[in-house]
Amino acid sequence: MVNVAILGYGVVGSGVGEILYKNGQHISERVANKVNVKYILDRREFPDSVFADRVVHDFSVIENDPEVQIVVETMGGVPFPLDCTRRALKAGKSVVTSNKELVATHGCELLKLAKENHCSYLFEASVGGGIPILRPMTSCLAANELQEIVGILNGTTNYILTRMIRAGLSFDAALKEAQANGYAERDPSADILGWDACRKICILSSLGFGRHIYPDQVPTEGITGITLSDVAYARSGGYKIKLLGRSIRRDSDLKVCAYVAPHLVAEDSPLANVEDVFNAIQVTGDSIGDVMFYGRGAGKLPTASAVVADVMDIVRMKGKKVISWEEGGEDTVYSVEEIANQWYVRVAGDFAVEGTRRLRNGDAKDGENAFITDEALTPAQVRELTKDMDVKAMYRVL
Amino acid sequence: MVNVAILGYGVVGSGVGEILYKNGQHISERVANKVNVKYILDRREFPDSVFADRVVHDFSVIENDPEVQIVVETMGGVPFPLDCTRRALKAGKSVVTSNKELVATHGCELLKLAKENHCSYLFEASVGGGIPILRPMTSCLAANELQEIVGILNGTTNYILTRMIRAGLSFDAALKEAQANGYAERDPSADILGWDACRKICILSSLGFGRHIYPDQVPTEGITGITLSDVAYARSGGYKIKLLGRSIRRDSDLKVCAYVAPHLVAEDSPLANVEDVFNAIQVTGDSIGDVMFYGRGAGKLPTASAVVADVMDIVRMKGKKVISWEEGGEDTVYSVEEIANQWYVRVAGDFAVEGTRRLRNGDAKDGENAFITDEALTPAQVRELTKDMDVKAMYRVL
Repeated sequence: MVNVAILGYGVVGSGVGEILYKNGQHISERVANKVNVKYILDRREFPDSVFADRVVHDFSVIENDPEVQIVVETMGGVPFPLDCTRRALKAGKSVVTSNKELVATHGCELLKLAKENHCSYLFEASVGGGIPILRPMTSCLAANELQEIVGILNGTTNYILTRMIRAGLSFDAALKEAQANGYAERDPSADILGWDACRKICILSSLGFGRHIYPDQVPTEGITGITLSDVAYARSGGYKIKLLGRSIRRDSDLKVCAYVAPHLVAEDSPLANVEDVFNAIQVTGDSIGDVMFYGRGAGKLPTASAVVADVMDIVRMKGKKVISWEEGGEDTVYSVEEIANQWYVRVAGDFAVEGTRRLRNGDAKDGENAFITDEALTPAQVRELTKDMDVKAMYRVL
Repeated sequence: MVNVAILGYGVVGSGVGEILYKNGQHISERVANKVNVKYILDRREFPDSVFADRVVHDFSVIENDPEVQIVVETMGGVPFPLDCTRRALKAGKSVVTSNKELVATHGCELLKLAKENHCSYLFEASVGGGIPILRPMTSCLAANELQEIVGILNGTTNYILTRMIRAGLSFDAALKEAQANGYAERDPSADILGWDACRKICILSSLGFGRHIYPDQVPTEGITGITLSDVAYARSGGYKIKLLGRSIRRDSDLKVCAYVAPHLVAEDSPLANVEDVFNAIQVTGDSIGDVMFYGRGAGKLPTASAVVADVMDIVRMKGKKVISWEEGGEDTVYSVEEIANQWYVRVAGDFAVEGTRRLRNGDAKDGENAFITDEALTPAQVRELTKDMDVKAMYRVL
């Protein structure tokens, strides 16, 4: 029997409990061992849960119980989860988490700690909810040198953009609808400002390219500036606007650049057709070319099923599954200023610009126009091109 | 050092050699061991290859060399590969293959043989080329009870259909183009008649649902009957025609039904936007909902990189990676006659049919029309509906 403690019995944590209970027999057969929920750590009590008698309020009970082999951390936030994770790993207990902020900011340290203590630190659920992505990157694509990772990493913003594109809702109206449907939090900042996508591209990039990249090294722009006018101009050119997290490894010195920003994506590309709360992550390798992983990027059971898959891996491999990447720093990244793209630009005034293709928009306000540059330009080049213009919006074209 | 023998040095086999040579250092670091190509078995000699001195013509050299731990079978066909695989496994050597026909027809036996001899039989490359699909199904989705698997499993037919849809080529013209581009073989039967997709859905279904399903249990229809008229009617209704392999597990008795047939797929669904030689496989689980895996379904390096990933897994896990499924038979499958779908029907004559939505097609021949049924019908029900009509084409709507 393998004993698990679940820290935080909110949406994901209770989903983990539900799957371990409901699919218990199936799971036991697959891993040839019984997986038992021994403790649930939460401030609250859960008198109606099947695990009502397992609730504890003090992490040291779990830390000091040698029977607990696996700790599932589904609390969110950083300081307390970080403390618990460190203590669990030091006690030789493997830890599984869905906490992207913690992995993005302290992953390198925690992976090292796990290795030193001969246990595992796994976090499949931290990126893409239930979509299998981290494990395929480390195993199935292992024969490849990866070159680029790009994806729709946040379901809330993708839902908002889908509603703007399909139903013609304004950003504010689409956000309100997302909140009413439970797809956006009351304080939606982390989603709409791109922070959530930023944490996820940090994790993908660290794992895919082997060196930790931290959120403050990733220029991040959200979707709050996108208007229906941009949506219409994009459509007239055959594009949809999507918020993408992107990380590119430079061949010459193996440095990495990651950023988060809205992009215009060609309508008939696979990424453009990822709608609503779905996520998709495209990985490019030297042998395999492009592969894409698609599915629900959030939600109780999808995310919980990824957590449980990690738990099962630990049981099967007896905590010997080791993921690692090296420490990163200033000298392992290069600037987003060096990355050239075609650009979409919306400006005040009605004039043509050489070297660009003008977009048409039946609903455009008078005295406004938009274009896409013919050539890929660096940010400095597009700033130079538009320096005498009254720029209203400017997005990369993928 | 781990010694590998490659059986068959054609497209995929030489790709495996190329990746092991080119990415050798990177691979060695990842698996903490050197992977050495000791033998290549082929009828031919390869004087210009870096492995020219490793070529042998008799399998027993490999079989009897205790230094060979892993055999890569990339020959294709069944009788000789089957013989070699049995002998390798009995000698305790793990086997990695890209041979879908062999896995679809003898997978259950060979997996059992591997288990008995404490070695591995892996075949990630047999489905979806380089797309990671089998490994995620067994690990990442392990916490799920799977319900359905559906996919675009054959790149050749998807290329032909894409060219019919996008460029208005006839089936024959599109096939010729595919042959000219190297996407279709001189004898394209296995692709265009659906046999290749059939073998792949057999493997996916066996792995996903735990019991072997054999090609002769899978009703299989290819794409040779699809006309430009069908393409145009489908478009007018907002659909694209795609050849799908599909397998559905029935909750009540856990029996499985698999089939291969062209389907009309809604234009804005992720599967519809899988174009050219790309493949995509969608898996539905009880916790995770739908996830989709997308990438190049064939090609030398994508397929070879999946083979090498399996080799690396075996090195890492010292041949202890065990996949298995049970034997299947008549009592583990149910009939495709029990599966209800909406149907697209093209018929001679110009008349309306109750309970259907008529499609428009500007290029339609006089005296022909097409419709989609409002309700999901079983094959018997749609045959009854159309029994007095001159049916020209009839495809399911997904």
